[in-house]
Amino acid sequence: MGSEVFVHPQALNESSQVGAGTRIWAFAHVMKGAVVGEKCNIGDHAFIETGAVVGNGVIIKNGVGVWEGVTLEDAVFVGPFAVFTNDRFPRSRHNPHAVARYKDDSWLEHTTIRKGASLGANSTIMCGVTVGQYAMVAANAFVREDVPDFALVAGLPGRVIGYVCACGLKLPSTGALRCSGCGAEYESAGKGLRMK
Amino acid sequence: MGSEVFVHPQALNESSQVGAGTRIWAFAHVMKGAVVGEKCNIGDHAFIETGAVVGNGVIIKNGVGVWEGVTLEDAVFVGPFAVFTNDRFPRSRHNPHAVARYKDDSWLEHTTIRKGASLGANSTIMCGVTVGQYAMVAANAFVREDVPDFALVAGLPGRVIGYVCACGLKLPSTGALRCSGCGAEYESAGKGLRMK
Amino acid sequence: MGSEVFVHPQALNESSQVGAGTRIWAFAHVMKGAVVGEKCNIGDHAFIETGAVVGNGVIIKNGVGVWEGVTLEDAVFVGPFAVFTNDRFPRSRHNPHAVARYKDDSWLEHTTIRKGASLGANSTIMCGVTVGQYAMVAANAFVREDVPDFALVAGLPGRVIGYVCACGLKLPSTGALRCSGCGAEYESAGKGLRMK
Repeated sequence: MGSEVFVHPQALNESSQVGAGTRIWAFAHVMKGAVVGEKCNIGDHAFIETGAVVGNGVIIKNGVGVWEGVTLEDAVFVGPFAVFTNDRFPRSRHNPHAVARYKDDSWLEHTTIRKGASLGANSTIMCGVTVGQYAMVAANAFVREDVPDFALVAGLPGRVIGYVCACGLKLPSTGALRCSGCGAEYESAGKGLRMK
Repeated sequence: MGSEVFVHPQALNESSQVGAGTRIWAFAHVMKGAVVGEKCNIGDHAFIETGAVVGNGVIIKNGVGVWEGVTLEDAVFVGPFAVFTNDRFPRSRHNPHAVARYKDDSWLEHTTIRKGASLGANSTIMCGVTVGQYAMVAANAFVREDVPDFALVAGLPGRVIGYVCACGLKLPSTGALRCSGCGAEYESAGKGLRMK
Repeated sequence: MGSEVFVHPQALNESSQVGAGTRIWAFAHVMKGAVVGEKCNIGDHAFIETGAVVGNGVIIKNGVGVWEGVTLEDAVFVGPFAVFTNDRFPRSRHNPHAVARYKDDSWLEHTTIRKGASLGANSTIMCGVTVGQYAMVAANAFVREDVPDFALVAGLPGRVIGYVCACGLKLPSTGALRCSGCGAEYESAGKGLRMK
């Protein structure tokens, strides 16, 4: 992986703010003004909108749209067809009753996915939430509340069902908070964990 | 926005029945015979199939497929990756046991989204239902029954959890049915509401 | 339908292992090394990854990604925006804590969809499962356990709520296991059924 941005011949990159080593695959579209860091992977049919902010080393799998108002910190993983939102009560701007709501940006709600977190395939992330560092949202989960650091959230509505290591494996639900894979150790910190 | 149809250089428009001022964005595909009204916005990677009917001022966000049998009335909003269906018991036509079911169009079920309604991101709309005027389907909801006018439906299965104003804001659950945003007033009408 | 592979001018087919009569529609992408049988239909915006194996007569609707590790047997139907997975605990490979987990393919879990089965629109299939012959996964369902032959699975988590005929119709929940449509008869076999 060199210092250039790789843009597949069938992809569209209209942004001048894409970092070195990032790869943009077929039928993906990065809009003008979108900010994307280094060494990211943007899968087929993904879409990065003007106003989106993507850190370094972020993996965006196929079919993911990253809208205005969404921030993905470094080393986030976004699974295929995970869906973000940025308007809690969306209406067509051509609905005369709703025109006033869209006269400025007050409809826009922000979403932040913290460093190293993972969003599962086909999950839905309600706007306004923050997903904590190294948290993991299970496939198909619906997140409508903030997710603590290192928490594993699943279901509808998404609930904390355990905790995961920074490496991705589940932490034991009883006894010492030590990863059976990489050996990292954790301790409680607020509603989430922190690495010792 | 002029009187022409805007078709992004990377989009495909094969229909001659697309209204003035409608915009079709990158990697979207409008098939021959699809009917699309004026001033619509058809997002990246959307797909409008032959036999679909889309009114005026409809917003179709990224990745939405509007199939044969689906009708979207004026000023509908379809959130990103909302999914329609048109066959309740789908099988491959190459499954020899199912060939007889596909010898005509009896497998096809229609879906109607009434004027001004909104379908949330990643929601799923079962074929055969009607979503009422200005109703709102929450993100990730699964709709398998008709939705009353102005109802807010969420969850799996989708249930009415409140009512919304034509402008999009939630109406108070107690007291007068008056929108805190735009001031519109409502009264009960069947299972839904109507504007006074 | 002839003996050639049809590749839409806006599609990408990089595989030399696609069978006769298969059609690949606009903005779909079949990667090098993907194996696809005869007479398949690969819808707009679908994606078939290197390492995926697709049988004959398989219908892959719009927006479906078939990843490495996924096998679809003959005459399977995959509804629009059904989502597969192949990594239970995904992380960005640029997360330094996770690098060791991606040094080989031990993260990869396989999924098999048996002959004639159907996966509903916007369903999510957790990696590691097998969906039995002629089973049907309802729209929006989340499958995280094996599905018996001819079972109908719905909800979150997906549960068996009945049985379907090979032709696709629901079988009666009481009395003889005989399809009201095609007349096929069934008997119990393990957790599922088999045709008499």
